[in-house]
Amino acid sequence: MKGFVSLVGAGPGDPELLTLRAVDRLKKADLVLHDALIETSILDHAARAQRFFVGKRAGRHSMSQRTINGLLIKHAREGKHIVRLKCGDPFVFGRGGEEAVALLEAGVPFEVVPGVSSSVSAPAFAGVPVTHRGRASGAVTVSGHSEAAYGPILSSLAPGSATVVVLMGFGHREAIAALMLNRGWSPDTPVVLTAGATTEKAHDHRTLLSALGREGFESAGAPVTMVIGSVAELDLRAPGPKSMSMNDVSEVS
Amino acid sequence: MKGFVSLVGAGPGDPELLTLRAVDRLKKADLVLHDALIETSILDHAARAQRFFVGKRAGRHSMSQRTINGLLIKHAREGKHIVRLKCGDPFVFGRGGEEAVALLEAGVPFEVVPGVSSSVSAPAFAGVPVTHRGRASGAVTVSGHSEAAYGPILSSLAPGSATVVVLMGFGHREAIAALMLNRGWSPDTPVVLTAGATTEKAHDHRTLLSALGREGFESAGAPVTMVIGSVAELDLRAPGPKSMSMNDVSEVS
Repeated sequence: MKGFVSLVGAGPGDPELLTLRAVDRLKKADLVLHDALIETSILDHAARAQRFFVGKRAGRHSMSQRTINGLLIKHAREGKHIVRLKCGDPFVFGRGGEEAVALLEAGVPFEVVPGVSSSVSAPAFAGVPVTHRGRASGAVTVSGHSEAAYGPILSSLAPGSATVVVLMGFGHREAIAALMLNRGWSPDTPVVLTAGATTEKAHDHRTLLSALGREGFESAGAPVTMVIGSVAELDLRAPGPKSMSMNDVSEVS
Repeated sequence: MKGFVSLVGAGPGDPELLTLRAVDRLKKADLVLHDALIETSILDHAARAQRFFVGKRAGRHSMSQRTINGLLIKHAREGKHIVRLKCGDPFVFGRGGEEAVALLEAGVPFEVVPGVSSSVSAPAFAGVPVTHRGRASGAVTVSGHSEAAYGPILSSLAPGSATVVVLMGFGHREAIAALMLNRGWSPDTPVVLTAGATTEKAHDHRTLLSALGREGFESAGAPVTMVIGSVAELDLRAPGPKSMSMNDVSEVS
């Protein structure tokens, strides 16, 4: 009897943005260790699994990374099939790399199941393509968690040369704007703030780099993605109700 | 009778990395306009749809973007449900933004269905996390298609400050390496080249920035992703056959 760990990306929130492989692994799992902000309908795919919440709450880890690694190894050695379910993609600020290192060192077989990253999908749901011909031929995804994380990138990158997508940086948005303005970005650079993208809590706001931090946007407890650059001027959403989709069209046609 | 267009990301290649929503839209589609390199088993979800290839072959568009936009609009006006199926994510170098603009201007209802981008998943399948604590707090995804696309980004970004992921830049890898070395990146910066990630054609190669272009790597006709930076030193893949997965474990346990 051999245990196995799947490090699975759950995508940005919407249960329909799970991959087929993620659903398969949840169905086969004996144990699911999941982050915060994973919807019940996603966890319900794991019908026969025990489920444990191991994520962050109010910015604090409820469990240390070392403890999570230990749980993965212990239960795998008991022969369980474990899904470590993470928001977005496991390798985009998901600490999936650290878990993979621990599993490798412990000799526990594992796999990585990529997910739809909110670094691209959150902007998309706010109508913003992170790349767009004539506006951006590249995109920088950066952790806004600390100056040490975003400083070296944003103080060097040439103004306007790429779209900047900041995750986990809502609390530092004023400092980030100051740094970018100081680097020479135009005060009129468009910015989109989007919170809880793809979920029922989704809301977004458009502002300019010079006004970032004074825009009065509230995250309402949802994770915020900031998109900074020329593409943030675009709003490529079809008119009509936000919930408009092929489902709705099917009902009326 | 009202037509509808779904701009759908098919993910990096592996049919199991489709999202549930992508499968749903394919099943409901009357017409699928798809890129190259989409596997038959993905297209087979669209059992009742007409399918047309509208992508690139050997670097040349078989159809102009204007023609594709025109087809989307024409068939939507005939009341069809259309899936425009693109590799990876529609908004990461997928020209999905241009199609969305055309649909908006024509008043055709549409939606964007994000996909798993190869900018993150191709490195992951080569064992490389694009972000990793202590190594990279950000990642730059850049088009390597032309110097105009990658130059302003790579000639400004501080050496070692972020992981650089280059898509569509295999042919320019020597020029890209020269530019980064000139900017001050260490000649010993690790590089991973990965081709056809997540598909049966997948193969990868590890080299250093100073040797990029002289490594003798062959793409074998598959799209190449280049990952440049400290994270490319990692190889977070479980030992054993490449196809190792929870499926295999289930069979033997």
